Amino acid sequence: MFLSKSVELFTSRIGKLKKILKSKGVQSFLITGDENVFYLTGFYGKDSGSLLLLTEDSLYLLVHFIYLEQAKKSIHIKNINIVCYRKNKFGKLVEMIDGYNFKNLMFEGKNISFGDFDRLRKLLSGQKKKLISIEGMVEKLRVIKDGLEISRIEKACRTADKVYKGIISLSASGIRSYKEIELAYKMEELMIKNNSSGKAFDIIVAYDKNSSLPHYNPGNKKIKKGLILIDFGCRFENYCSDITRTIFTGSNKICNEFKKIYDIVLEAQLMAIGECREGMDCRKLDEVARNFIESKGYGDNFGHGLGHGVGLEIHEDPVISTESKAVLKENMVITIEPGVYIENFGGVRIEDMILVKKNGCEVLTRSNKVFFIPDRVRS
Amino acid sequence: MFLSKSVELFTSRIGKLKKILKSKGVQSFLITGDENVFYLTGFYGKDSGSLLLLTEDSLYLLVHFIYLEQAKKSIHIKNINIVCYRKNKFGKLVEMIDGYNFKNLMFEGKNISFGDFDRLRKLLSGQKKKLISIEGMVEKLRVIKDGLEISRIEKACRTADKVYKGIISLSASGIRSYKEIELAYKMEELMIKNNSSGKAFDIIVAYDKNSSLPHYNPGNKKIKKGLILIDFGCRFENYCSDITRTIFTGSNKICNEFKKIYDIVLEAQLMAIGECREGMDCRKLDEVARNFIESKGYGDNFGHGLGHGVGLEIHEDPVISTESKAVLKENMVITIEPGVYIENFGGVRIEDMILVKKNGCEVLTRSNKVFFIPDRVRS
Repeated sequence: MFLSKSVELFTSRIGKLKKILKSKGVQSFLITGDENVFYLTGFYGKDSGSLLLLTEDSLYLLVHFIYLEQAKKSIHIKNINIVCYRKNKFGKLVEMIDGYNFKNLMFEGKNISFGDFDRLRKLLSGQKKKLISIEGMVEKLRVIKDGLEISRIEKACRTADKVYKGIISLSASGIRSYKEIELAYKMEELMIKNNSSGKAFDIIVAYDKNSSLPHYNPGNKKIKKGLILIDFGCRFENYCSDITRTIFTGSNKICNEFKKIYDIVLEAQLMAIGECREGMDCRKLDEVARNFIESKGYGDNFGHGLGHGVGLEIHEDPVISTESKAVLKENMVITIEPGVYIENFGGVRIEDMILVKKNGCEVLTRSNKVFFIPDRVRS
Repeated sequence: MFLSKSVELFTSRIGKLKKILKSKGVQSFLITGDENVFYLTGFYGKDSGSLLLLTEDSLYLLVHFIYLEQAKKSIHIKNINIVCYRKNKFGKLVEMIDGYNFKNLMFEGKNISFGDFDRLRKLLSGQKKKLISIEGMVEKLRVIKDGLEISRIEKACRTADKVYKGIISLSASGIRSYKEIELAYKMEELMIKNNSSGKAFDIIVAYDKNSSLPHYNPGNKKIKKGLILIDFGCRFENYCSDITRTIFTGSNKICNEFKKIYDIVLEAQLMAIGECREGMDCRKLDEVARNFIESKGYGDNFGHGLGHGVGLEIHEDPVISTESKAVLKENMVITIEPGVYIENFGGVRIEDMILVKKNGCEVLTRSNKVFFIPDRVRS
């Protein structure tokens, strides 16, 4: 992409946000979420504590000295004032807005700690400016992906598929020569070799009983014959992919029980994917999978939501759960990931990434869903 | 370590905290920092959103269903009530404390978002309970490391040293066959092979001009003859190490300028390490390195603090900077990491981890500080 095109893109995002703020009568907005700052400016200072201030007629980015050069190089919009601080960012901010006569400074309640809020509140009291929390303004824009975003997410999904293919091609006996953590590391190696910038989150490789812990951290357990749950994603140009597969590397003892659960989870997933389209209620979408799993007697074992949005963050809006109030729209990117977990026995989860379309959806992750991994791949 | 011993350890930490809370008249305390919850209970649910509630006579851990099994397995204290929620954790919490007649619920202002604070505040208004922020209570305990913690940190440092040795043993010409991101990945491979559970934070490998960006993310730049800044750390049983080396892989053009800066940074670092001991003022410690760098004409190029505490988190108390109010105490673990950064030219940073002792300190990271890396290691 040419820089001029990308300047256009970021500028149009700022334009959209300004329009919404104007319609709500907001005169100033402080943006503290790192992904939101990136989405609007092109500067991604993860955990940098940077502040983006939008007023009716100007735009300021406050960065610590150690991020200054990076900010200058990555900013993709014109007419932004980059302000560098070395010590007290809120002090600097308050100094900067002293001349402005707005009464309320809106801020992102979700993206600031109570402690920081409280410090800023005290500093602002001298100017008689009030802080007012407003949640999800930029996130609401981010939920619908544009063409550039979709192409980056697709690339992150392509890499995930290649990684999975690489793992499966080890064959069951090959996989059994790894410890959980070694397999996770092997996957990261494949991510780098396939042109992603690495993992999108800590990879889950859970063997045997560990698979019943939905957020397990891979350990030194040696993989033998049995069940493995693999949940991973890559990052490509800051955008994430997210996929889960559960596979079986042999053993006759527990095979039938797991295959039964696997088929239930897979059917639930396919049923839900079949319902993904613009206009679908996210609560109802969750119900599709949940009701089916419940009807098979495993309702209590599916203890999390059906899915979530993915983009710059691995968990974004919309949430797809029993509590969700969201409705699917074209160009949302979501996961569909039902699971059944049985304590001290094991768990199955199958997850794909979905691009929502007007009359259906596109499954972005294309890795196969074969449960039994052969012991040796024929050469 | 035997489980019984570890139960003793965690129980004594809870005991210490209770004593402090009692002395302050605090009747109930809500702990939301994941590392704080781990420090007190043994359960480490990173980003799990778990809540630990301490009242005068009881202890509750609220975890989401998907962390329940993990929580049960990793809890290292007795007399704790593990409560599982599936949807609304704050709703569950408010329900739980309805019977208690305390008026104020203290909470960790630093470890909760304003949005979550506000939701909880509204829910509590029915019970006429007030939320009061209190910062750094558990962090204050964590700042002094006990024997078990020090041994884990030492192991994380040993692995870091092995990783660095592995990189240096590639020789300068070997290193020059890598891209930045490939070298970062190679380092991660060495971490796993040397028994750590992986990187403590995103590895920085910054070649040439990129080294002037103190928080650079390694990219696809091929390493040639020149300067490389490497900042990395490993995790061992949840404890972190943190080390930076700057090396030179050849080229005559820029060699003298860099060597001059390197020697200044190294001297500043050694001077500061020489002053690390119980009783030393952290602001004065920062000054030792800063004044020296300033005297050499690079004051404006050292734009961050001299160091920070390390433990369960990569950045902990104490902060060692021009603003710090902390004083070193025995068994604190800190970094000493002066740097000089010149925009569009390059930067040098040298960082070691230090265990503070009564009358001096122990340098925990032992990797050599040779600037020039030979082109081929003699075999």
